[in-house]
Amino acid sequence: MNTYDLIMKKRNGGILDKDEITYIVNGFTNGTIPDYQMSAFLMALYFRGMNDRETTDLTMAMADSGDRLDLSGINGRKVDKHSTGGVGDKTSLIVGPILACLGVPVAKMSGRGLGHTGGTIDKLEGIPGFQTSISEEAFIEQVNKVNLAIVGQTANLAPADKKIYALRDVTATVDNISLIASSIMSKKLAAGADAIVLDVKVGSGAFMKNIDDARALAKEMVSIGRLAGRDVTAVITDMNEPLGNNVGNILEVIEAVECLKGHGETRLMEVSKTLASYMLLASGKADSIEKAKELIEEVIENGKAFEKMKEFVEAQGGDSSYLDNIDKFEKTKYERVIKGKDFIEKYGDASGGKTYYLSECNNEEIGMTSLILGGGRQTKEDVIDLSVGIKLNKHLGDKLEADDKVAVLYGNSLDKIEEAFNRFVGAYKITDTEITKNPIVYGVIDN
Amino acid sequence: MNTYDLIMKKRNGGILDKDEITYIVNGFTNGTIPDYQMSAFLMALYFRGMNDRETTDLTMAMADSGDRLDLSGINGRKVDKHSTGGVGDKTSLIVGPILACLGVPVAKMSGRGLGHTGGTIDKLEGIPGFQTSISEEAFIEQVNKVNLAIVGQTANLAPADKKIYALRDVTATVDNISLIASSIMSKKLAAGADAIVLDVKVGSGAFMKNIDDARALAKEMVSIGRLAGRDVTAVITDMNEPLGNNVGNILEVIEAVECLKGHGETRLMEVSKTLASYMLLASGKADSIEKAKELIEEVIENGKAFEKMKEFVEAQGGDSSYLDNIDKFEKTKYERVIKGKDFIEKYGDASGGKTYYLSECNNEEIGMTSLILGGGRQTKEDVIDLSVGIKLNKHLGDKLEADDKVAVLYGNSLDKIEEAFNRFVGAYKITDTEITKNPIVYGVIDN
Repeated sequence: MNTYDLIMKKRNGGILDKDEITYIVNGFTNGTIPDYQMSAFLMALYFRGMNDRETTDLTMAMADSGDRLDLSGINGRKVDKHSTGGVGDKTSLIVGPILACLGVPVAKMSGRGLGHTGGTIDKLEGIPGFQTSISEEAFIEQVNKVNLAIVGQTANLAPADKKIYALRDVTATVDNISLIASSIMSKKLAAGADAIVLDVKVGSGAFMKNIDDARALAKEMVSIGRLAGRDVTAVITDMNEPLGNNVGNILEVIEAVECLKGHGETRLMEVSKTLASYMLLASGKADSIEKAKELIEEVIENGKAFEKMKEFVEAQGGDSSYLDNIDKFEKTKYERVIKGKDFIEKYGDASGGKTYYLSECNNEEIGMTSLILGGGRQTKEDVIDLSVGIKLNKHLGDKLEADDKVAVLYGNSLDKIEEAFNRFVGAYKITDTEITKNPIVYGVIDN
Repeated sequence: MNTYDLIMKKRNGGILDKDEITYIVNGFTNGTIPDYQMSAFLMALYFRGMNDRETTDLTMAMADSGDRLDLSGINGRKVDKHSTGGVGDKTSLIVGPILACLGVPVAKMSGRGLGHTGGTIDKLEGIPGFQTSISEEAFIEQVNKVNLAIVGQTANLAPADKKIYALRDVTATVDNISLIASSIMSKKLAAGADAIVLDVKVGSGAFMKNIDDARALAKEMVSIGRLAGRDVTAVITDMNEPLGNNVGNILEVIEAVECLKGHGETRLMEVSKTLASYMLLASGKADSIEKAKELIEEVIENGKAFEKMKEFVEAQGGDSSYLDNIDKFEKTKYERVIKGKDFIEKYGDASGGKTYYLSECNNEEIGMTSLILGGGRQTKEDVIDLSVGIKLNKHLGDKLEADDKVAVLYGNSLDKIEEAFNRFVGAYKITDTEITKNPIVYGVIDN
């Protein structure tokens, strides 16, 4: 077997067998296949695609390239969750405690934010004392005790994916369904859960911009799960505007607390409950989505979910008094209110004769607004300011009066707030006719 | 401008402008663009192609990447010739002296053989004393004196092409018309001739396997010439079997001598005369192809072409007495005759009831036969045996009797001769119905 022939085979539209795919993944990971051959292979793959079997073989080869997390020390059926990334997505902080207090063990390795999307680990570090880096032993012990642990990726999970992704990132070979699906699934399979519920985001703030691409990615990942013998469900959810009201690390922890206390924003709660329901179903703790939703609502109403959140935070060294009294969280130096008139003056007729509605949002720009304020990373090395962010009072489809408070920007630099203000206002469009709101859950795909 | 965006642009089917193409070529040549980005770009280009303007810009950028040969010191209109490579192609050795004695200055930088095709420089080195490496000054002086010099590439011509080709060679991005055409033409443009006649080979022994591809390549190169302001003509000729009777370095010099003495094999002479005619036309020394052919036949018949060959060989230090007496050339230790029955026993009915014809030749395999005998290089570092090779007595379409001598293999190792024998016989097919011979010249494309 040689690399040249395999590049040629894929270039000419051939189907690679398992050994051929493993040869390429292992060869590239151990350095015997040079990056210039791998990038040519990836570009050929970009054009020719891979079938479900090839994609699964690619996923398995990457999952096998490093450690596989051994979760056998955890009692019960382990269920993992993964989001393809979005703006204001704090569902892990809501879903985790709900499932844990319903008896489902959640052992989650999570990432940091990069670019316009946030990361769960960064958010949790907004709670004073919270440790995201703990030993695998302590991690498993905590899951057995609390049913919930969320840590940064410590194990050497899927190093092949890491190396391949770094190459794709500089050779314009990122946006291919097989490559995206295998990248996500290789880490999830290596992370050892029995069942995985995927939140595939679609819209202007997501990697997948349209529903067809999102559905294709969801199907591909569910297919990989099926072929790899794992129970995988994908929920396709809207990311055409931020999820919920708050964007920014501490602000999102605060919103998660509000949700667990029963005061969650409607769309955010619908996504969270849907994801939690499918995870409950996969865990065997509920036998229908209806039953699962009942259980979820119960633990929110009776306060058990919030108590579990505090227990989990304490278990990882965090100061849970901050959750009881969110006013304790660090405040930013500056706040900037954005009003309806800021949009109407820019886009509409400010004389007052017309009624306007927020009609479109370039949600990636909202992510960038948060990044500009200091809440995100442009490169992996950037240090982020956990306190900054955005609170939204209006969502797409809402009526917009000149004096309405649309959002508040929180920052520690007036210059950055001003830049963020322009970016934020520039991200929206308004219209003078009433519009239909986007659905929040577009569909569910399972195997 | 950045490389990532240009890879993405070409990947998405965009048209690159001159600055963008120059940026990539120069960046890769000077090392600021890493090979893994270049190989991804080349694979994207393989799938998306380039239009004529892009291909010409690519060619010019590569031609400008190193030295351009300054032939202004040579009197008259300089005409160059280039073959895309084949088996038994010794036309440069025939065409050069013919043109030179008709007053056309031929200043040729030529290559060495690699793989199944031979190189003019190797062949000339079969003549004792012949120097292929001379200074640019001496080269120009010789052309002014003799009208003919053929040397190895000494100047730093199109280093970008060299570096890009080396990358294409290991990333399965060789066989793209734009890339092939620009690679050939960048060197030809840098080599400074006023007019260029291209011999585009087509068939089983050529890079282009079918007439459509050959025509596309020819058109692309003629288009580059037109856009670059050079007079370019492409002749498409057959390479479905070796050209002429002899394959191997010294054997091909001997055959060229026979041709110049008026005893050339028909098809070889037709190709040589056609190429020489178009070169004469381009030089202005003839005003029609008919007139050119007359002039060519005249200098063969009256011996002037052969005398010019000797003069040229002597000018470059070679011993021209070998051309007068070809028996002086070094002989191989072994000869192996291949007869008609070797084919009939393998492929047909040896009982004698049927009449057979040579019907098909995998000509690349004939090139490999010569390589196995020691006459070719698998890698650039291989040392070749100039004396070995093949003499053919039969061509495609010829009748095949059991006792007919089809070919003789010349070698210095019995093992290799045996291996070469099997390879040679395995390269042909025979049939029991008479077949039409392939044309030798398929067409001419000019600007």
